[in-house]
Amino acid sequence: MANIQTPIPEKTIERLSEYRRTLLKCHAQGITHIFSHVLAGMHGITAVQVRRDLMLIGFSSDTKKGYDVKVLIDFIDGILYSEQPMNMAVIGMGHLGQAITRYFNSKGLKMRITAAFDVDKEKVGRCIDNIPCYHINEFEQRVEELDISIAIVSLPTSAASTLVLPIINAGIKGVLNFTSAPLNFPQGIVVENYDITTLLEKVAYFVKVADGNS
Amino acid sequence: MANIQTPIPEKTIERLSEYRRTLLKCHAQGITHIFSHVLAGMHGITAVQVRRDLMLIGFSSDTKKGYDVKVLIDFIDGILYSEQPMNMAVIGMGHLGQAITRYFNSKGLKMRITAAFDVDKEKVGRCIDNIPCYHINEFEQRVEELDISIAIVSLPTSAASTLVLPIINAGIKGVLNFTSAPLNFPQGIVVENYDITTLLEKVAYFVKVADGNS
Repeated sequence: MANIQTPIPEKTIERLSEYRRTLLKCHAQGITHIFSHVLAGMHGITAVQVRRDLMLIGFSSDTKKGYDVKVLIDFIDGILYSEQPMNMAVIGMGHLGQAITRYFNSKGLKMRITAAFDVDKEKVGRCIDNIPCYHINEFEQRVEELDISIAIVSLPTSAASTLVLPIINAGIKGVLNFTSAPLNFPQGIVVENYDITTLLEKVAYFVKVADGNS
Repeated sequence: MANIQTPIPEKTIERLSEYRRTLLKCHAQGITHIFSHVLAGMHGITAVQVRRDLMLIGFSSDTKKGYDVKVLIDFIDGILYSEQPMNMAVIGMGHLGQAITRYFNSKGLKMRITAAFDVDKEKVGRCIDNIPCYHINEFEQRVEELDISIAIVSLPTSAASTLVLPIINAGIKGVLNFTSAPLNFPQGIVVENYDITTLLEKVAYFVKVADGNS
């Protein structure tokens, strides 16, 4: 449906992903139309922001009853997703890796975690939550075999940097990095460094400042 | 040491948290001094950015050998942390909640998860990873008793909004929200909405665009 090759700004993509989930919930509740200010209110932003985001992706079918929920969901789907589902791999199948796998694969997304990698003898060669776990030495081979395009890095921070070369060599296109080590890749590989500790320290800092000022 | 009550910008706080972890690693390796451009390189940013961030927090003791690693760690600590350690609670002790608890409590941060809340009979009244798990109905009472200031929300998205009032009433100061429902709180409560799905969809989108353009 949508045929936009110029990347849309990151923040807009984040909001589209959030709108989509809200719209899916509305759709499940039998709501067929929604006004921009209602959608905006559910996200704590302005209606102008919502309209600007939707204008940016070329969605313009506003009606007197507001946006058609189903039509808008399909339109955002066309922007966010490829026709083919994307395969993902988790590197590091510890507690966090397992939590992430269960979390994503239960969400009904058009992306699925289809393989895991670890070095732990207890895990390698077994299936964990229906996902086969391979030794990290097999990474490049399996990524090609299984047509995996996104790697989720959830192993101990100290081991993270050893993965940069295998990820490049395997032809991985996108990386979601949950370790505390920011990973740098050459252009062409999309990386989101997603360090939970940083977020927590940020919250703690602003709590501290608020306390000091109260 | 530091006595700054005007909030420092969010992005600077994030970078300070990251510098601190890098510096701790350097310190553990016996490195006593580091130049701004070396620190910058380890984070994929410019030396100007590093110097500007440190100027903003009032750190100016640059030497011919670069920054003194230990002095800089202590200085950043003084900015980020309270004198007293902060207590945190996890709401929702499923796979994600347990992974988060193990992850944070193994990091040696000046914040600790000291209580968990759930509704599951199998969990309530037990200790999970040495953390007592209480029924969510006891939330307000336990938060006061245990002097908890930060809540980590990791229960199913559908239940997230039921927590807004208990969190306000309990006097929680900061919230780290891992569900897909953005939670809105009155001013005075710091919230980080930290939706993993949004990040993943963002990576997938940019992978798709890169594919389409190649």
